[in-house]
Amino acid sequence: MSSIKDFTLACPVPISDYPTVTLAHGGGGKLMHQLIERMILPAFQSPLLEARHDGAVFDLGGARLAFTTDSYVVNPLFFPGGDIGSLAINGTVNDLSMCGAKPMYLSCGLILEEGLPMETLWAVVQSLKQAAEAAGVQLVTGDTKVVDRGKGDEVFINTAGVGLIEHGLTIAPSSVKPGDVVLVSGDVGRHGIAIMATRQGLEFESKIESDCAPLNHAVQALLAAKLDVHCLRDLTRGGLGTTLIEIAEATNQQILIEETKIPVRDDVSGACEVLGFDPLYLANEGRMIIFVPEAEAGKTLEVLQHSPYTEGAAVIGRVTGDKGGVVKMKSRIGTTRIIDMLSGEQLPRIC
Amino acid sequence: MSSIKDFTLACPVPISDYPTVTLAHGGGGKLMHQLIERMILPAFQSPLLEARHDGAVFDLGGARLAFTTDSYVVNPLFFPGGDIGSLAINGTVNDLSMCGAKPMYLSCGLILEEGLPMETLWAVVQSLKQAAEAAGVQLVTGDTKVVDRGKGDEVFINTAGVGLIEHGLTIAPSSVKPGDVVLVSGDVGRHGIAIMATRQGLEFESKIESDCAPLNHAVQALLAAKLDVHCLRDLTRGGLGTTLIEIAEATNQQILIEETKIPVRDDVSGACEVLGFDPLYLANEGRMIIFVPEAEAGKTLEVLQHSPYTEGAAVIGRVTGDKGGVVKMKSRIGTTRIIDMLSGEQLPRIC
Repeated sequence: MSSIKDFTLACPVPISDYPTVTLAHGGGGKLMHQLIERMILPAFQSPLLEARHDGAVFDLGGARLAFTTDSYVVNPLFFPGGDIGSLAINGTVNDLSMCGAKPMYLSCGLILEEGLPMETLWAVVQSLKQAAEAAGVQLVTGDTKVVDRGKGDEVFINTAGVGLIEHGLTIAPSSVKPGDVVLVSGDVGRHGIAIMATRQGLEFESKIESDCAPLNHAVQALLAAKLDVHCLRDLTRGGLGTTLIEIAEATNQQILIEETKIPVRDDVSGACEVLGFDPLYLANEGRMIIFVPEAEAGKTLEVLQHSPYTEGAAVIGRVTGDKGGVVKMKSRIGTTRIIDMLSGEQLPRIC
Repeated sequence: MSSIKDFTLACPVPISDYPTVTLAHGGGGKLMHQLIERMILPAFQSPLLEARHDGAVFDLGGARLAFTTDSYVVNPLFFPGGDIGSLAINGTVNDLSMCGAKPMYLSCGLILEEGLPMETLWAVVQSLKQAAEAAGVQLVTGDTKVVDRGKGDEVFINTAGVGLIEHGLTIAPSSVKPGDVVLVSGDVGRHGIAIMATRQGLEFESKIESDCAPLNHAVQALLAAKLDVHCLRDLTRGGLGTTLIEIAEATNQQILIEETKIPVRDDVSGACEVLGFDPLYLANEGRMIIFVPEAEAGKTLEVLQHSPYTEGAAVIGRVTGDKGGVVKMKSRIGTTRIIDMLSGEQLPRIC
């Protein structure tokens, strides 16, 4: 018989510190990274996992493919600018895009809670359909499970996706080079504030909608323009700050960004001040950072500004050439500080 | 703002009958089929989904691939003969195998409940690792989410998988032909009884272990023997009975099976009598049916009997050549009756 006892001799996570899973272990911050680094990566030991990318890239049957997955447990299911259905499609479309792949086929696994109104399920399915059409991907295989009332939370969705890589670039942290310019594809923090405001019943003067959007069209435009894209990463759990640190650590490079160049809408800044959040760590669902050689920064910006969902792109910093795997930020008042990961997320269940 | 109201005008499932999702909607029986046929397939309208196979088969970048997904919500997590980890690997390995593909790369999405003992997570991760090694597949990409206490149930796992098809056969319901012989790869019903016994704290004289196992090695052996395999289907939710009906309906063929030829262990039969279950509908996690031309039935049986996990294979029936999409069973006493799908499953959360 398989039982817990068969496996528990060598659990490497310091059980004395965290004998049970906490919400912060899913928050995209330090604790989640520790869990993955100490428990999950050592168990599977695949070079594809070691790449610490948004998806796995491999050759299969002569094709160069990307493959990725994400589960979605966002609460609430519907929020300004999106819902769990559009999130589940765009999240996986974007992870494939970050590998430089053209997203082609998606799977969809639904975990439904007994008692879920059939109308809610219908609305989620319609949203999945519309988001898949907008991104130009096909949902080709799926699964439906139902759990007892009180053992789930309305709807959880997993999507996995397969994409095709049709160019010779290696778009990955390993390609980041000293001197690279860092661009962000638009204003940051809206998804986090939209979720928070809905959850807490807050109202702001202007309506803050999630940035939830597919980024494949913009990435394909960069590739069509023959730009030498070194690395792409979307800014989901943990936000811009955590994502930059992940890249810096994976490459042992130092990244320097300028606070004044990071696009943040005034209403998002205002909401952050009221709520005590830092937009640097707020989750986004339609934003990415782009690493390109300095000589191509201008053309990259131009392509992005003419592509859907990336019109607000901006250059925010560069890879300094110093070693050390740290991210520094030059503040509004001219001081420079090191950016650190948060322990968990500012908000649980953001995606 | 995205909200339920944007989508609810035309929900096709009769809301008057089922205004909410029930456990039976996830049970693999009639209600689940209705939900998928009326709500999900019409929304996505993909020819790949229309094939109603265990996975999607497509050409991409010159490679012929299969792609599939399943979520696992089995309760309890650990049971005789397996656990949620081995189930999650073998289930997806088997779905790819049923498409005639060689399973290559798997993804893994974990949804953890806050408060889950870290030791339990460790045990599940070790089981995933061991099952992946046994099946010869690589886990290459993953995701971890945490939900609040009381909004999940310890661990839910989604796996998706990509497999490579390296032969010219179309292994699918559409290839089933009049005169085909139907084989089953081993005794049926053990997974269902193993779960039920654990859940209810029942003890039988002999220990009934789940049949949970990877079927890719046996399928690759059939292909290596150049057998003209027409269709493969694993016998999960809904069991042998429901699976046969799915194939009969998808092909509009009539299938006739003989009750006395279906391998059922005596202890499983005994448990079924005590518990009021029918082994025909009990879930299996390492069993499949195989459709081959009559002339190849003997060699197919021989290959299976010499392959791992299919030593107990047997011929159980044939495709009669009559139209009608029904399954008939010749009983022990010589009468013939039509086999119907159950409404839900005999047991919820079996996988």
